[in-house]
Amino acid sequence: MQTNFTIQPLSNQKLENTLKVKIDSKTKPIGALGTLEDIALQIGMIQNTDCPSLNNTSILVFAGDHGIARKGEVNPYPQEVTAQMVYNFINQGAAINVFCKQHAIDLKIVDAGVNHTFENISGLIDAKIDFGTKNYQEQPAMSTSQCISAIEKGADLIVKSHADGCNTIGFGEMGIGNTSSASLLMSYFTKIPIKNCVGSGTGLDTQAIKNKQHILSGVYQQYTLSSPLEALATFGGFEIAMITGAILKAAELKMTIIIDGFIVTSALLVAHAMYQNVLDYCIFAHVSEEQGHQKMYEFLNKKPLVNLGMRLGEGTGVAVAYPIIASAVAFLNNMASFESAGVSGNK
Amino acid sequence: MQTNFTIQPLSNQKLENTLKVKIDSKTKPIGALGTLEDIALQIGMIQNTDCPSLNNTSILVFAGDHGIARKGEVNPYPQEVTAQMVYNFINQGAAINVFCKQHAIDLKIVDAGVNHTFENISGLIDAKIDFGTKNYQEQPAMSTSQCISAIEKGADLIVKSHADGCNTIGFGEMGIGNTSSASLLMSYFTKIPIKNCVGSGTGLDTQAIKNKQHILSGVYQQYTLSSPLEALATFGGFEIAMITGAILKAAELKMTIIIDGFIVTSALLVAHAMYQNVLDYCIFAHVSEEQGHQKMYEFLNKKPLVNLGMRLGEGTGVAVAYPIIASAVAFLNNMASFESAGVSGNK
Repeated sequence: MQTNFTIQPLSNQKLENTLKVKIDSKTKPIGALGTLEDIALQIGMIQNTDCPSLNNTSILVFAGDHGIARKGEVNPYPQEVTAQMVYNFINQGAAINVFCKQHAIDLKIVDAGVNHTFENISGLIDAKIDFGTKNYQEQPAMSTSQCISAIEKGADLIVKSHADGCNTIGFGEMGIGNTSSASLLMSYFTKIPIKNCVGSGTGLDTQAIKNKQHILSGVYQQYTLSSPLEALATFGGFEIAMITGAILKAAELKMTIIIDGFIVTSALLVAHAMYQNVLDYCIFAHVSEEQGHQKMYEFLNKKPLVNLGMRLGEGTGVAVAYPIIASAVAFLNNMASFESAGVSGNK
Repeated sequence: MQTNFTIQPLSNQKLENTLKVKIDSKTKPIGALGTLEDIALQIGMIQNTDCPSLNNTSILVFAGDHGIARKGEVNPYPQEVTAQMVYNFINQGAAINVFCKQHAIDLKIVDAGVNHTFENISGLIDAKIDFGTKNYQEQPAMSTSQCISAIEKGADLIVKSHADGCNTIGFGEMGIGNTSSASLLMSYFTKIPIKNCVGSGTGLDTQAIKNKQHILSGVYQQYTLSSPLEALATFGGFEIAMITGAILKAAELKMTIIIDGFIVTSALLVAHAMYQNVLDYCIFAHVSEEQGHQKMYEFLNKKPLVNLGMRLGEGTGVAVAYPIIASAVAFLNNMASFESAGVSGNK
């Protein structure tokens, strides 16, 4: 692999103790802020301080097209919708625009490989690898060099964000057909049979799900894969590969990574197979209605912050759950202690 | 009862259809925003418009003391902590201060009946009924007239907030010993045996929980109660009675009511027993770690927005979950439609 990352595990027992004492000194019963306390501890450990802060929080939305989607057998929306939604992002009309604006999250839209030529679009980051992937029913979705290029481009974008002062990052995606890629990657990395990794995507009915299961089972059996990179190249989308690279670089740079839904978590499965320590830097925003997502969490032994029945992608899970993460940092920094407030402790 | 409210059910089929069409026209798969879509619909129905807005959102925190807490048998913290925490609220040091500041929620602190004389404290609303309730081990916590007075004072505060342009309201509470009141009320209204309504409160251990169960079982058997008002007067705290009145008035005024944890939901159980329609106006912010809270939700057949293992009270569940509600309103108002964005629909 030409894409190497150095991802350190989080381990600083002294700081961990300091953070726990600080959390427990706040004017509340021990543990009474539940998950917020876990998040505060984790972000303190990531930032190596007992006064962490969320700076220039950003969401990068990667858009890419998928060879398999051209036939329309696995996707209820036509492939053109990927490009149309990119325009919608740029024009501030999509859900992710609304939620990022609500929380002052910096939103960047990246063309990872949409099957469309975007001309003179200000605000769109051009990282296009190709005009959509190949159809993995016939050949691997991308070449190894394309896959490495996508990982590197994802990583480069993180380097830029980090240089701009961003220490907290989330990812979103847009790509008609990409739940199929995510299902295939999920099956490969979790060893859960492909049938059980397939869901309704953007809205397939029961018969169409069965058909999708049948098609993807066939695809899965077609390949013998020997590395995470090969699996990513074979089943992935450009947007998924780019998110994989972005996750790895963000962990290397000790940024807090907020994980979105089914597709982004499939990219995390790839990253995790390459570098297990990456999980130390991840907070899991939400669990999608897409049925495989819950199983991904079980595999990773992680719990999401919220379960709101969402299944939209775009990073919307990250954006909607983000204020909870901000609350965790806020209580750690701004609540009074029993001592400072003159409140009697537990008897 | 001298405290009458007129609470209309939400039923406007035409508006409901309009809202559903509007939600489904947004650039997302049908239903893909999950619970946010339900919330958007509900708030539209409450406000009788397809362009709802959350105006001057406020949280009222009611503080009151409890006769039973003086002995310290059911509460790990001493009664003095109620007053100390009121000072902490006023001095901006508590969790609820931090979260309200984060989301620009207007926070009001109300002395419903703390066993302390607050002198010259600017920012504290004086609605004191008495210096704590009586101990219901010996006699009803309050007289009927005190209970009615508390309901009316709670309602009056809502009238003021409403007049100030607030259309979205949440409630919090502070009162050492008030999980005991909530457990007794829960048992009365849900018919779940009192033993199963008792939890660890602010942090009792297993033996102390057993003792609390034993004490409250004795209390429960002592009384034969014939109305919601009598139950509230016998088992309640002043803060719980005031929240009951506030909930009822807020529903009458067609405000969106955001329900917090175990104690606030016990007040809702009283309000619901008086006027079932009140539920139409309620959004359920979070489920507490206090074990009875989940059972309250089962009884009401409602689902909370988040489950973050919190058990702090003060309205912190409302504040932490509030941005999700704001997201629901934001997508309804600000997302593009398939038509306006030129995005192809489902095939």
